[in-house]
Amino acid sequence: MEPIRAVQWAPGGGAVRIIDQRRLPAECVERDLATLDDVRDAIATLAVRGAPAIGVAAALGLVVALIPSTNDDPTTFGERVKGYAGYLASARPTAVNLSWSLTRMTARIATMYHEPAAAQLAALRDEATAILDEDRAMCDAIGRHGLDLIREGARLLTHCNAGALATAGIGTALAPIYLAHAAGRGVQVYADETRPLLQGSRLTAWELSRAGVPVTVLTDGMAASLMRAGEIDAVFVGADRIAANGDVANKIGTYALAVVARHHGVPFYVCAPWSTIDRATPDGEAIVIEQRDGDEVRFAGGVAVAPAGVPVRNPSFDVTPHALVTAVVTDKGVFRAPYSFTY
Amino acid sequence: MEPIRAVQWAPGGGAVRIIDQRRLPAECVERDLATLDDVRDAIATLAVRGAPAIGVAAALGLVVALIPSTNDDPTTFGERVKGYAGYLASARPTAVNLSWSLTRMTARIATMYHEPAAAQLAALRDEATAILDEDRAMCDAIGRHGLDLIREGARLLTHCNAGALATAGIGTALAPIYLAHAAGRGVQVYADETRPLLQGSRLTAWELSRAGVPVTVLTDGMAASLMRAGEIDAVFVGADRIAANGDVANKIGTYALAVVARHHGVPFYVCAPWSTIDRATPDGEAIVIEQRDGDEVRFAGGVAVAPAGVPVRNPSFDVTPHALVTAVVTDKGVFRAPYSFTY
Repeated sequence: MEPIRAVQWAPGGGAVRIIDQRRLPAECVERDLATLDDVRDAIATLAVRGAPAIGVAAALGLVVALIPSTNDDPTTFGERVKGYAGYLASARPTAVNLSWSLTRMTARIATMYHEPAAAQLAALRDEATAILDEDRAMCDAIGRHGLDLIREGARLLTHCNAGALATAGIGTALAPIYLAHAAGRGVQVYADETRPLLQGSRLTAWELSRAGVPVTVLTDGMAASLMRAGEIDAVFVGADRIAANGDVANKIGTYALAVVARHHGVPFYVCAPWSTIDRATPDGEAIVIEQRDGDEVRFAGGVAVAPAGVPVRNPSFDVTPHALVTAVVTDKGVFRAPYSFTY
Repeated sequence: MEPIRAVQWAPGGGAVRIIDQRRLPAECVERDLATLDDVRDAIATLAVRGAPAIGVAAALGLVVALIPSTNDDPTTFGERVKGYAGYLASARPTAVNLSWSLTRMTARIATMYHEPAAAQLAALRDEATAILDEDRAMCDAIGRHGLDLIREGARLLTHCNAGALATAGIGTALAPIYLAHAAGRGVQVYADETRPLLQGSRLTAWELSRAGVPVTVLTDGMAASLMRAGEIDAVFVGADRIAANGDVANKIGTYALAVVARHHGVPFYVCAPWSTIDRATPDGEAIVIEQRDGDEVRFAGGVAVAPAGVPVRNPSFDVTPHALVTAVVTDKGVFRAPYSFTY
């Protein structure tokens, strides 16, 4: 079976090709994004989502958005790059990968302000391709490092989607699981459905089923009772930002899972690329949490499930303090407490 | 404003009038149930739900189902009562109130086997009315006992619906909250939406809003991070069955809430009528947990949100061990550990 390519160059390189994740699991539809607003909207509306994937999509998207500007004078082009990058970075505030990727893109041409726009664009395209390729390699590396944490027959719980659909490669939290499955370890996955946007049931269940990995969907409130029954051997989740002290911002509901995992003595592993670690953020308190539209909670499957206009909370992420994290699995290896990501 | 009457006699007493809770919050529609199958289906499909309410509905429903049998000979009638009661009791296995209520009904005519069917039916009608009236009084008593646990300005979290819609009166977990609101204590309620069937957003938010009690809806995964932020002063939940040792069966997700409440030092109160305490059940391990159709998880708002046929878990309840319960609030008073409900 073809591997999932959540984000890649469209043939010819004139657009970013994504899988429109809003339409899964009903149908797997690819979309080509060719303008700045196409790219920003796709990120803001979660057509492309997952911290690594939005970093890659923004890098590729910045390039395609700049194609019409190859006749700019060098200075105008350079200013445009900064403006576009800032606009894309504003699409979602919590995942550090988005700003990391765009900062890397703008840095790539920092010393090229005298060179023609076409040369700057070519350099940006190279950098975006490097980010894409490195993301795939990063997924594989996380998978290799995390594989040691998965024993024969392990029953693993995950939250939201930190799989192939969240990256350019085989995922972060799901990467060790895919490798364990390929190695014949007979793993089983329990996927929290992950309200409000149901990335667990819509995306994780879809991609694991597609790959033949046994997966069972749960509502978010069920995980604790499965742990109490001894049915979960470990939790694997992704991350949108990891502070220097090891505090982890990830999809809302992750913190509750970390608390109940600790209560039951179940290991809680966070899998993320090294670029998710934000050394400039000392701890979780300093992480900006995106608040999304309340109708995501008021509606389910497009149908109103709460009284019209009732107040709701809809933080997209929560922060899990490092004390509840058994290990952070990165492409550079597995890190355990005390966390001090300052190098 | 008219009080909510989730279950009552229809005028004339020939039917059980319920609010069809499957259609809330979109519309508040009453339905009259006049046959045995009407009553059982309404309980099985959650048109009427909530442990106390289904106990009352079954008692009233048993009476209306027997009306066509008033020409039976006494023995035939008595056997019919037992058969109908068993059929109604099988509609849902976990809530003890259903079997408690039906056992009480059949016991009422245990010594009347020689009397005409009409006399037996009249006795059953009296007993059903007593169960209905006592349920209302029970709600008020729980409210009075629980009121002492709610301070000025308290921010209270609840799960599922243990309100007026779950009883014949003002609810169990919501009873103290209604009384605190009426006493001007300025309480605020956070309602877990409670997947899969969303009783929190559909029902609790609806009935509290209708009564003017400030309510905010959360997804089930958000409660822990609100507690960590210090925004929750206490948790109030209902119960479907309480074992003799104080273990509590309640809506799936309750146990996770109890674990995170303990982690944050937030009091966790269980409110239930005395009839919910099942002295014949020594502990939570002995409670049968209803497993419901997986499509309740695979669909949200009628739309498929998981791949077709993906395996799901759908236990309707979980068990919270008594060690995590701060107090059990009943119509007979507030009980704290060590729980020993054997008298």
